Amino acid sequence: MREQHLRPSPISATVDFEADGVQHGFLRLPYSRDDSAWGSVMIPITVVSNGEGPTALLTGGNHGDEYEGPIALFDLALKLDPAEVRGRVIIVPAMNYPAFLAGTRTSPIDRGNLNRSFPGRPDGTVTEKIADYFQRVLLPLADIVLDFHSGGKTLDFLPFCAAHILADKQQEAKAFECVAAFGAPYSIKMLEIDAVGMYDTAAEEMGKIFITTELGGGGSATAKSAGIAKRGVLNVLRHAGIIRGEIEPQPTEWLDMPDADCFAFAEEPGLVEFLVDLGDTVERGAVIARIYPTGRTGAEPFEVHARMDGLLIARHHPGLIKAGDCCAVLAVRV
Amino acid sequence: MREQHLRPSPISATVDFEADGVQHGFLRLPYSRDDSAWGSVMIPITVVSNGEGPTALLTGGNHGDEYEGPIALFDLALKLDPAEVRGRVIIVPAMNYPAFLAGTRTSPIDRGNLNRSFPGRPDGTVTEKIADYFQRVLLPLADIVLDFHSGGKTLDFLPFCAAHILADKQQEAKAFECVAAFGAPYSIKMLEIDAVGMYDTAAEEMGKIFITTELGGGGSATAKSAGIAKRGVLNVLRHAGIIRGEIEPQPTEWLDMPDADCFAFAEEPGLVEFLVDLGDTVERGAVIARIYPTGRTGAEPFEVHARMDGLLIARHHPGLIKAGDCCAVLAVRV
Amino acid sequence: MREQHLRPSPISATVDFEADGVQHGFLRLPYSRDDSAWGSVMIPITVVSNGEGPTALLTGGNHGDEYEGPIALFDLALKLDPAEVRGRVIIVPAMNYPAFLAGTRTSPIDRGNLNRSFPGRPDGTVTEKIADYFQRVLLPLADIVLDFHSGGKTLDFLPFCAAHILADKQQEAKAFECVAAFGAPYSIKMLEIDAVGMYDTAAEEMGKIFITTELGGGGSATAKSAGIAKRGVLNVLRHAGIIRGEIEPQPTEWLDMPDADCFAFAEEPGLVEFLVDLGDTVERGAVIARIYPTGRTGAEPFEVHARMDGLLIARHHPGLIKAGDCCAVLAVRV
Amino acid sequence: MREQHLRPSPISATVDFEADGVQHGFLRLPYSRDDSAWGSVMIPITVVSNGEGPTALLTGGNHGDEYEGPIALFDLALKLDPAEVRGRVIIVPAMNYPAFLAGTRTSPIDRGNLNRSFPGRPDGTVTEKIADYFQRVLLPLADIVLDFHSGGKTLDFLPFCAAHILADKQQEAKAFECVAAFGAPYSIKMLEIDAVGMYDTAAEEMGKIFITTELGGGGSATAKSAGIAKRGVLNVLRHAGIIRGEIEPQPTEWLDMPDADCFAFAEEPGLVEFLVDLGDTVERGAVIARIYPTGRTGAEPFEVHARMDGLLIARHHPGLIKAGDCCAVLAVRV
Amino acid sequence: MREQHLRPSPISATVDFEADGVQHGFLRLPYSRDDSAWGSVMIPITVVSNGEGPTALLTGGNHGDEYEGPIALFDLALKLDPAEVRGRVIIVPAMNYPAFLAGTRTSPIDRGNLNRSFPGRPDGTVTEKIADYFQRVLLPLADIVLDFHSGGKTLDFLPFCAAHILADKQQEAKAFECVAAFGAPYSIKMLEIDAVGMYDTAAEEMGKIFITTELGGGGSATAKSAGIAKRGVLNVLRHAGIIRGEIEPQPTEWLDMPDADCFAFAEEPGLVEFLVDLGDTVERGAVIARIYPTGRTGAEPFEVHARMDGLLIARHHPGLIKAGDCCAVLAVRV
Amino acid sequence: MREQHLRPSPISATVDFEADGVQHGFLRLPYSRDDSAWGSVMIPITVVSNGEGPTALLTGGNHGDEYEGPIALFDLALKLDPAEVRGRVIIVPAMNYPAFLAGTRTSPIDRGNLNRSFPGRPDGTVTEKIADYFQRVLLPLADIVLDFHSGGKTLDFLPFCAAHILADKQQEAKAFECVAAFGAPYSIKMLEIDAVGMYDTAAEEMGKIFITTELGGGGSATAKSAGIAKRGVLNVLRHAGIIRGEIEPQPTEWLDMPDADCFAFAEEPGLVEFLVDLGDTVERGAVIARIYPTGRTGAEPFEVHARMDGLLIARHHPGLIKAGDCCAVLAVRV
Repeated sequence: MREQHLRPSPISATVDFEADGVQHGFLRLPYSRDDSAWGSVMIPITVVSNGEGPTALLTGGNHGDEYEGPIALFDLALKLDPAEVRGRVIIVPAMNYPAFLAGTRTSPIDRGNLNRSFPGRPDGTVTEKIADYFQRVLLPLADIVLDFHSGGKTLDFLPFCAAHILADKQQEAKAFECVAAFGAPYSIKMLEIDAVGMYDTAAEEMGKIFITTELGGGGSATAKSAGIAKRGVLNVLRHAGIIRGEIEPQPTEWLDMPDADCFAFAEEPGLVEFLVDLGDTVERGAVIARIYPTGRTGAEPFEVHARMDGLLIARHHPGLIKAGDCCAVLAVRV
Repeated sequence: MREQHLRPSPISATVDFEADGVQHGFLRLPYSRDDSAWGSVMIPITVVSNGEGPTALLTGGNHGDEYEGPIALFDLALKLDPAEVRGRVIIVPAMNYPAFLAGTRTSPIDRGNLNRSFPGRPDGTVTEKIADYFQRVLLPLADIVLDFHSGGKTLDFLPFCAAHILADKQQEAKAFECVAAFGAPYSIKMLEIDAVGMYDTAAEEMGKIFITTELGGGGSATAKSAGIAKRGVLNVLRHAGIIRGEIEPQPTEWLDMPDADCFAFAEEPGLVEFLVDLGDTVERGAVIARIYPTGRTGAEPFEVHARMDGLLIARHHPGLIKAGDCCAVLAVRV
Repeated sequence: MREQHLRPSPISATVDFEADGVQHGFLRLPYSRDDSAWGSVMIPITVVSNGEGPTALLTGGNHGDEYEGPIALFDLALKLDPAEVRGRVIIVPAMNYPAFLAGTRTSPIDRGNLNRSFPGRPDGTVTEKIADYFQRVLLPLADIVLDFHSGGKTLDFLPFCAAHILADKQQEAKAFECVAAFGAPYSIKMLEIDAVGMYDTAAEEMGKIFITTELGGGGSATAKSAGIAKRGVLNVLRHAGIIRGEIEPQPTEWLDMPDADCFAFAEEPGLVEFLVDLGDTVERGAVIARIYPTGRTGAEPFEVHARMDGLLIARHHPGLIKAGDCCAVLAVRV
Repeated sequence: MREQHLRPSPISATVDFEADGVQHGFLRLPYSRDDSAWGSVMIPITVVSNGEGPTALLTGGNHGDEYEGPIALFDLALKLDPAEVRGRVIIVPAMNYPAFLAGTRTSPIDRGNLNRSFPGRPDGTVTEKIADYFQRVLLPLADIVLDFHSGGKTLDFLPFCAAHILADKQQEAKAFECVAAFGAPYSIKMLEIDAVGMYDTAAEEMGKIFITTELGGGGSATAKSAGIAKRGVLNVLRHAGIIRGEIEPQPTEWLDMPDADCFAFAEEPGLVEFLVDLGDTVERGAVIARIYPTGRTGAEPFEVHARMDGLLIARHHPGLIKAGDCCAVLAVRV
Repeated sequence: MREQHLRPSPISATVDFEADGVQHGFLRLPYSRDDSAWGSVMIPITVVSNGEGPTALLTGGNHGDEYEGPIALFDLALKLDPAEVRGRVIIVPAMNYPAFLAGTRTSPIDRGNLNRSFPGRPDGTVTEKIADYFQRVLLPLADIVLDFHSGGKTLDFLPFCAAHILADKQQEAKAFECVAAFGAPYSIKMLEIDAVGMYDTAAEEMGKIFITTELGGGGSATAKSAGIAKRGVLNVLRHAGIIRGEIEPQPTEWLDMPDADCFAFAEEPGLVEFLVDLGDTVERGAVIARIYPTGRTGAEPFEVHARMDGLLIARHHPGLIKAGDCCAVLAVRV
Repeated sequence: MREQHLRPSPISATVDFEADGVQHGFLRLPYSRDDSAWGSVMIPITVVSNGEGPTALLTGGNHGDEYEGPIALFDLALKLDPAEVRGRVIIVPAMNYPAFLAGTRTSPIDRGNLNRSFPGRPDGTVTEKIADYFQRVLLPLADIVLDFHSGGKTLDFLPFCAAHILADKQQEAKAFECVAAFGAPYSIKMLEIDAVGMYDTAAEEMGKIFITTELGGGGSATAKSAGIAKRGVLNVLRHAGIIRGEIEPQPTEWLDMPDADCFAFAEEPGLVEFLVDLGDTVERGAVIARIYPTGRTGAEPFEVHARMDGLLIARHHPGLIKAGDCCAVLAVRV
């Protein structure tokens, strides 16, 4: 067993995962540095437990600039009454907490992308220590895992909930039931081409029911997009039998991302003008966006073309684009 | 006369403002610095002229992270045919060009906010030199001035076109005719409480017809918001008789910002959750947004209340908010 | 009158200086910037009033890395009961608030040293706007002004309270009575060689009773040094008749700084070893400190000598010293 | 043997460890970088040898912002006469030399904490290369090792000398004899909970007599604290028989740190006010410090309580504290 | 086989290495980061192929501040006509492309020195991913490899072409024939003392004919130095039979660097005055340079002496020098 | 008189300008900042005096990355024997001393370009305080002023000495006699189009004999270029009768810069390839340099053309060029 060879996690929790009731506390991660020789990162955590039942692990802030998840989970941590619960709910609204505080995708401490850092290391960077703690302590406690994502500061998405195509079809079916229960406006079946280092994969390899979302982006959240997250998490807890009550049924449209032609990249930098918006459909070969060179007026813009027929489900958010940036993502209706 | 005491602008134009036809060139501003002893800032400019007629001065990028204006103007500079023109169109898609290249509100060189730097100085900072050139060279050439704004990276707006309440009611009336011609979804009469240092004021004090816009924000533009800008500028040029053709008529809703109760500020930092979206109406005292303290779960959020009945016309964009940030702006329907 | 030509301060207070009772609020200073287009600096302020009587203006954080003043004033703001007060107490625990939040002497926004920025400007930098507000709004309200200082991160002081030699001997006498009332372990009569731009001078030129302190340093405070500040401010309020009760009498030693020979500067950079500590006496010509060149072992250290007989009242704090740094300050017993 | 698989250290010494007399030189560590393609880090070193006898390895600057050690060792390197020596003294006043030059705990090059980098790597970061050189070259030469520490810029300590509880009780006893000889005002028996990566452990695992100190902090040194270091190092060399003469006997108080309740952490950021000073005693449950929220006046401070009866032996130094910082450390008298 | 255990490179090429004709494209390296969640590094590449024949791999920008190679290769990519070619020419003018864009020796992303990063890792830093792609994809395609270097911003060189002393004398002989064909003013036989991590070694260990250059430096190129590069690369392609025509014969002087006495390092920082220029000869013991301490006038400069007779072939370029910098390199005529 | 209204300079000299003999000292400029509350900038200065005679003021480091002047003046300060002198020599090898220490054109403290900061201000930035001290203290002491320049890190020059066309033809003639005495390989008559803020103008307006140089560049100096400076300064002192002995006669070529067509600017950024080197002649219309776009291979380079017949006397130094950078400067032989 890999875990046997590793030293214990340096992270200590101020909450007791076995106690009933509501506990608000911290995962304390020692972090010695120039401005605090004996400092720590204090990751907020809430545990709400009530007797026997399944455990849900609910996470946001895996990337620090994505906000629907943290909003729904700070709200849930404040409101969830143990009397309503059967089992256990573990809430970490901001997994990569240093990134969340900085409002950046990656950690300002070590530039770690938490979702490419699994299984982590107990003696690695701060980000790797967080991954290791989830890998060896929190994921093993969970039956069902919901990890919220959005587009962050540089991408914008149509709101969807998703699970992965898995080898274990029973596990896969349960995950998609969960996606349906969540009730986002769109739902996607994802086949990850490269899932190495992801939290998703870590959870799935342990046999957990894992679902994720993309609920907007641009480094912001709206009342509408946060509402989808808040309703979705309650629906998932109801579906799992952890809280009582009926799922609020929502219409959803199922989408598919067939292959790498979904993605359109910029080959030149400049000022980007989109000719279609999220949710619009385009035909193969159509111009999705124009990129104006910023060095002079009167120069022809570079064009980004659709490589397949589809629906625009994601786009580059900032007004300027760099060569190599993903400009647009298309999907097809199932 | 103030101008007589000032040394000439150090900026030289590579275009001839008196020549007919299309010219794409630069405003070259000498800028000596560590990484270029004899360097310059090269601000792109296009002039399209054809015989007698009025002059329109069209500008974007007054703040460097606002994109509808630059998109509409890089596009117009590329497409405008002098044969269609009667008079002259001067296009500067990115006034505060260093800020535009950096994608920031203010200049990365001197942190100058161009729209608070007028009338500028020929021997001041780079931003002040740009202001001075507009003050003493470009504005005097113009009859009508359209300056595009949006919310930038930290604010988001309902799309509107606006002009100011002015002492000269004839000048004011002409400006509002121009606003109506622009045809944005919303139109606003603005009474600036403090207009010192603004480009707007500089233009108005010279008796120019001056209109401006707020067309979105969040540091991005959509096909829809850029479309409003592209149609609006053509409508304004048609209205002015500089290009031929009929104005595309658009429905617009007229709004008013009666007093300082329009603005709601955050007194605490945190994760912001809006309970209403742009265009929604709220009643006085209603909670517009909640601000969750990010230090721990289980703490009550701070609430931001509406100080009047109104329509949400602007909001803080980033997911995190700081104490003192403007959280929300309300307006009333006229 | 100079003030008549100036535009009004952009700062607005959320407290009413004329109302009785306790008010905790803010001085809101609009500060537009890249990360908040419509942001503000929110400087905390407390006003405690009760009927007729003198006004004391109490300030800390004039330099942002000096802590005895802010501790005593955050504490006083929390505890002061209007029922105990006759007159008015205005408390601003952190004048240069951006510097205080950053833990730096000067403002991180504009590198402004607030105590060299008076009388300030309403259209200047953030630091100049703060100075202007004190100059034109707060100082005119005050009868007595107590401004706390310490050595900050780079100097360390023996704890003393001080006032200046003034042309108006009646004003001067009242100030030294106040110094005596404060009751610091040491008390100093200061003759500033260059007082231009100081808050002290601004207050004194308006005829206010002005006293100041240096209560420690090194970017920290101890229970002992904070205790001196907390006791001193109460003693001053009692002395002024604003709060009831007897002054707690304290022994103090009076010192004098006769001329520029008080100061000893480093001419070489290196690792500094002091041979005497604060409060020790030295004779003229004695070695106060040795400065080891850090480039190699075995090199002779540079010596810093006393230029007069005296008591070490201040020293360079950090372990490394640069050429030109003030290494030591001596004073003589009166 | 691990060492056999490693490539040789890239560090070359300009001194000959086998030669008699005094040599001042460098450990030259090649460091290619943008501002010097073929640059090096030049770590000063002094070797004083005279015939047969034990070798003492004396180090400071393991953390770059701790000054008593470097002062005592730059001084000793300058003054130690080989005629007084029997055996060999190797002096490296600033182990993590880039950190020492920067005045920071960790290296500005790679942010390496040298005391968590052992055994190091010859092909790793600059900090790892230094660790590797001590691990494979310098430690094997030594019989007795004295490594000076202090609190650095962010902690402040009562002055003590210490050694570790070891499995080899004979080795342990010799180390504590050395601690006693050093003669600091306090002496501590330390049981490290996690000693992985420490220089201490590297030395002890080779069977060396290893002692360390904490002699003050705050990023400074006083005449008094440097005096403890200078006297202590001579006492240790006398104790070891390397230099002649009697140990200067000093009173010392022996302390113990029984368990993790010694440590009190901050859970909220703010302005910290200590209610006790170093060397004061507190009872379990007493308030050690108050933390004022800096966002507004009139808010209740957060309190840090003692979790056991004890003596305050270390505290957070800066005036501001962050959530997760170690606020206070208690010990008990033996 | 090591390669079998590695995951595939994340880099994808937009060119087809097996197709005839000219292709200009990119090596697209996915690089997720705060300012582009789904961004990429786009390394320009040109492939010119025509039927059977050997493959030359031509590279510049291994270090990002060396310019003769990129100039010669951007020029060649533009001009090389497949009709002239027999075989294949793969041109990567800027290997460490992020470093090249930044004008720095190492990558601004990860500070990676590409020429010390071989064999690289597919899951490592951006620089390691580039190294891995050359190691596993491009080098295996090549028969002959020419990697251009110069001194960069901090060194300046006499212009030379070089190859290494190799165990395989046949391989070595072929490489030196190639050096002779290149025709630089100087030619050098190099015995690398430590060749670990170098691109050179990676190529040589695969049995490729590998040559390199140093053609100037100071972070610039002249018409003359770029001319040497442009002529040299054509000569090498002619020599290899890939393009037709006769080699332009050039006089060259063969040099040797016998041992570590070639190098002279600075032990003190300061303002450097060279007493000899590149190409001048010095005798052992002569003063090559003086280093003035910059802290004061009137202090004696430190002297850097020649440790052998020789020709100055390289020198520190910037006007200031740091302790540990390589000041001068000497070579001897063969 | 302007000077009467100004407060005294805060700079104090540790040398006595009226004393005979050699003095090495400092201009101490108080500079309070975060890392030194009572710090100073210590500008090295040497004064060598001997009885009656003219005063020469010799300066280098007006821009901090130009090295021939500082080398010649640190050397001269060390060697000049008062016995050889008749009159007075004031040597400031590094006028903008903070810039010189940083190796940058402008001051790292305030980004001040000293040569555009005259007449300066005693209460301005650090750079303005230096200018003010030269304006009001040092220039009035001088009869003849020699200010050394070179191209710095971003330009490279043919070595020349120069003076300005002046209204006072007697003053002008004396300056050109001085230029001839200096004996650089080239000599230029300069007509500054905009001389506002220059040290040159400040000196000339006081009627001083003022000469300047450009002696190389690229942020370095060679034995040859430093030799020109060292010989030139002695020749000037001999010419002025301040030191004895004959001027070493040198051949010089006189050049002229007739108008703004001398300058060729880049309009596109990229990798620059010069087709001519310093000292080469070009014809009007010829391609001086090509600029390769760095975004892709196979794109046509932008060309920079000569706008007149002439000799290349200056060029952009770095390998990359930005839009707006001065690429080349031509002059004509007289």
